[in-house]
Amino acid sequence: MALLMEHQFKQLPADKQVETRSFLESVSYLPPFFDCLGSTVFAPIKADIAGNITKIKAVYDSNPSRFKTLQQILEAEKEMHGSEWPKVGATLALMWLKRGLRFIQVLLQSLVDGERDENNPNLIRVNVTKAYELALKKYHGWLVQKLFKAALFAAPYRSDFLKALSKGREVKEEDCLEKVRQFLVNFTSTVDAIYDMYTKMNAELEYTV
Amino acid sequence: MALLMEHQFKQLPADKQVETRSFLESVSYLPPFFDCLGSTVFAPIKADIAGNITKIKAVYDSNPSRFKTLQQILEAEKEMHGSEWPKVGATLALMWLKRGLRFIQVLLQSLVDGERDENNPNLIRVNVTKAYELALKKYHGWLVQKLFKAALFAAPYRSDFLKALSKGREVKEEDCLEKVRQFLVNFTSTVDAIYDMYTKMNAELEYTV
Ligand SMILES: CCCCCCCCCCCCC/C=C/[C@@H](O)[C@H](CO[C@@H]1O[C@H](CO)[C@H](O)[C@H](OS(=O)(=O)O)[C@H]1O)NC(=O)CCCCCCCCCCC
Ligand SMILES: CCCCCCCCCCCCC/C=C/[C@@H](O)[C@H](CO[C@@H]1O[C@H](CO)[C@H](O)[C@H](OS(=O)(=O)O)[C@H]1O)NC(=O)CCCCCCCCCCC
Repeated sequence: MALLMEHQFKQLPADKQVETRSFLESVSYLPPFFDCLGSTVFAPIKADIAGNITKIKAVYDSNPSRFKTLQQILEAEKEMHGSEWPKVGATLALMWLKRGLRFIQVLLQSLVDGERDENNPNLIRVNVTKAYELALKKYHGWLVQKLFKAALFAAPYRSDFLKALSKGREVKEEDCLEKVRQFLVNFTSTVDAIYDMYTKMNAELEYTV
Repeated sequence: MALLMEHQFKQLPADKQVETRSFLESVSYLPPFFDCLGSTVFAPIKADIAGNITKIKAVYDSNPSRFKTLQQILEAEKEMHGSEWPKVGATLALMWLKRGLRFIQVLLQSLVDGERDENNPNLIRVNVTKAYELALKKYHGWLVQKLFKAALFAAPYRSDFLKALSKGREVKEEDCLEKVRQFLVNFTSTVDAIYDMYTKMNAELEYTV
């Protein structure tokens, strides 16, 4: 679990504001997560997420002091873009990015919770499917859903996935899961805070791709 | 067919050498071709091809006079990379790019030749499938082949596709097809020349993704 643990998310302050700089720093280590899934089939997903991050970073870099928190970005863009907002700029990029983050979070949580297909204990399809259903499915049309079902066959074995999360080092499964559990604490509350912000600011969209 | 016709490929010289500069210029207009297919599902394909072009361009730009022709690039990289070659650098990028070009070429040729499914004359699935089988299928493992089959459902209607090729202008189908025919002359001989070069230089690889 070295991959993720070396780049823990910061603990949120009492007001739940997410600091842009440290958020961008932490998420920048997530695209390689999709390499852990093993297949080149996931390259477009990795690219999509990396694209979201690049877009948010470009906005932040244009004025770091003005965009100290993610909420400041959404507020400024709302102001700036009028009726185009929220389907625009870093607001749109973060809208999709948070779904990818939720996917990762639910997948890891489900593994940590020991959810598994008793007939195929070394497959993670149930965990991946759960994450997909909670985070993404409703934003995907039937075709992308169909592609997801096909891509599911490329999901790695549970043991290979845990090993990949530990950067290929042989570690005890229990140790790895314990680290995932630790990682999930701040990660989950950050993702939750971003979802809450989208709800409160009425920035969430339901269209499908 | 404005899209492609405005950026015809150059006629090859007698020695069939492809000039890098004009080749890069002409292919740079091809990624938008995948927008003509209509669905965001094709975005990763567009990105893959655009990535190939970027990679070749970077090598060219590093020394335009040394890399005047595509063959000079392959020769220099063969020299430079030893046993890693040809799975490396612009040689690898062009190896894949030419397959995408072949896909486009066969698809357009098949439309021009009037090949169609008589029961579904406004679908282009037969043409897309033919192009896929000739250009790409053998380089794809079963999973990517499965994804292709699913993605095929996102292929546009024949009429919409021809319209998109004409940049959305209403043009007579026969006029559009005539322009495609013209475009195919130099395009096909350029793609053929690149394939011949890979065969002659023993630079073709058969691995699947
Ligand atoms: C020859 C063979 C042919 C085969 C062709 C097949 C092509 C397959 C295409 C698959 C799609 C790849 C996934 C990408 C999907 C994306 O379409 C969506 C929306 O993407 C968003 O779109 C916005 C505009 O609407 C902006 O452009 C956003 O960009 S912006 O930054 O510009 O604002 C962008 O992220 N993102 C998503 O759905 C997010 C995906 C997260 C994925 C999470 C993990 C799932 C893991 C699954 C494991 C089993
Ligand atoms: C949540 C939902 C989850 C869904 C997930 C689905 C994910 C779907 C993934 C689909 C794959 C997209 C197509 C890309 C495939 C690519 O894998 C291959 C090889 O790509 C090459 O690989 C090399 C290394 O081996 C280098 O990196 C090359 O890069 S380098 O420049 O670095 O050297 C690179 O081009 N290119 C290809 O097969 C080329 C594809 C050309 C496509 C032609 C048109 C087909 C049109 C079909 C119309 C119906």
